[in-house]
Amino acid sequence: MNPVAFAPHRMALRVYYEDTDAAGIVYYANYLKFAERGRTEMLRGLGFDHSRMRTQTGVVFAVRRCNVEYRGAARLDDALSVETRIDRVAGATLSLRQSVCRGAEVLADLDVLVACIDDNGRPRRVPAELRAALAGAAAATSAT
Amino acid sequence: MNPVAFAPHRMALRVYYEDTDAAGIVYYANYLKFAERGRTEMLRGLGFDHSRMRTQTGVVFAVRRCNVEYRGAARLDDALSVETRIDRVAGATLSLRQSVCRGAEVLADLDVLVACIDDNGRPRRVPAELRAALAGAAAATSAT
Amino acid sequence: MNPVAFAPHRMALRVYYEDTDAAGIVYYANYLKFAERGRTEMLRGLGFDHSRMRTQTGVVFAVRRCNVEYRGAARLDDALSVETRIDRVAGATLSLRQSVCRGAEVLADLDVLVACIDDNGRPRRVPAELRAALAGAAAATSAT
Amino acid sequence: MNPVAFAPHRMALRVYYEDTDAAGIVYYANYLKFAERGRTEMLRGLGFDHSRMRTQTGVVFAVRRCNVEYRGAARLDDALSVETRIDRVAGATLSLRQSVCRGAEVLADLDVLVACIDDNGRPRRVPAELRAALAGAAAATSAT
Repeated sequence: MNPVAFAPHRMALRVYYEDTDAAGIVYYANYLKFAERGRTEMLRGLGFDHSRMRTQTGVVFAVRRCNVEYRGAARLDDALSVETRIDRVAGATLSLRQSVCRGAEVLADLDVLVACIDDNGRPRRVPAELRAALAGAAAATSAT
Repeated sequence: MNPVAFAPHRMALRVYYEDTDAAGIVYYANYLKFAERGRTEMLRGLGFDHSRMRTQTGVVFAVRRCNVEYRGAARLDDALSVETRIDRVAGATLSLRQSVCRGAEVLADLDVLVACIDDNGRPRRVPAELRAALAGAAAATSAT
Repeated sequence: MNPVAFAPHRMALRVYYEDTDAAGIVYYANYLKFAERGRTEMLRGLGFDHSRMRTQTGVVFAVRRCNVEYRGAARLDDALSVETRIDRVAGATLSLRQSVCRGAEVLADLDVLVACIDDNGRPRRVPAELRAALAGAAAATSAT
Repeated sequence: MNPVAFAPHRMALRVYYEDTDAAGIVYYANYLKFAERGRTEMLRGLGFDHSRMRTQTGVVFAVRRCNVEYRGAARLDDALSVETRIDRVAGATLSLRQSVCRGAEVLADLDVLVACIDDNGRPRRVPAELRAALAGAAAATSAT
């Protein structure tokens, strides 16, 4: 699957007091919350919300690795966007590249490796339905 | 100012993993985050975002009292709405009534007393511009 | 059961960046986190941690009501204490009074009503073992 | 400065409901909170709490990069420890290696690059007093 075939998924969000800290900026851990919202909405847009995926396929996602580069500081009341690209779909994992942006400015870049597991934490293959939906999204994008 | 004159402000939000806890439901403190988002968006809709109000009037808000009744449990992936009504505008405080709802079901009711303070924590009067905007919103609503 | 018979449970905690917001103070919802830590440690001290209680008795706690008065602002690096008193043990609920303090200064007072429920959210009686432990704690305290 | 010269700083912490999510485990972003508590206590142990460092030297810390490997899942009521090692002190940055452990089991490994900045976000050199304290800690450790 070709990563450039995917247009990034974009999700808008707003910075509230809950996201900031006493340094006047968004607390560094909260970019991971923003990224998880972006991944969740990308999957929901493909028809896979977490609850339904768990019920229908017995699979949940677990983050195995998360590398973050902080390039700028988001502040209270900022309107941000989270961009999410699927980098690679392997047997039991998804690799994603995500950015948290304020307009054209990239505030944080994230590389995230997500594994499919069952309720007991054992690795599971990426569900075929999800794999097909991701491939369909790629095809639709590269056709344009 | 007549509280029934105000239609409630409504803000939609989604429940993410970050909001839930090991009991499978939204953690009780997080309803206060949802309520603060609702108050913030109500004020932004009137032209008063926190950053601008602080810069232009020197006033910030501080919660003095917050009473919450928990009536139901929100869960992962739920689509919720936060309803916010101004109950009373006094000299230096606003009283608000807020509800976190899933469709028609009320999951939490909040009574919140917010004080206007300056950067040193001293009480300040509700800024005249905000008072006027709240009165204007009330008049517009009661005219319909 | 006589509330004054109980000496309050005390738990120390420290304020980190994660607890603060862009106003430079502890975010208002986070006092509920502090209070929940205090309740949890009080119960753990009596031999009832959440995990074990759920496994052994099938009971979990759910907060039904939480009233907070904010009297002062905690700041980064503050050393705080959470004081927890059992106010009343009823059939299926516990009433607690809690304070978040910085030295002798009370920063927040909380009135919390906690219900015992089962995994399906149905009310359950306060487990007899917990009831006995709370009575034992009261007797030990009033004997001193 | 030789990284192996430093014994790791250790900080104990407990997992509360606030740290967990609906998957029954600690939410992935919260390991960054745990790590920040560990860094803060390591610095406090050397005499450098954030508030005092800001007042006395005008310097605050900002995380520039944070790489996390998740190896296991922490759960409600777990007793964890955060181990923090200074890897390298450069002109304006500190590199740290941190682990979140449950007993001998490593649940998460973090590589963190922290920059010294002033209130306007401009890079600043690591304060000489802090540099000396870190060197002193290294010398004391390697002498044992």
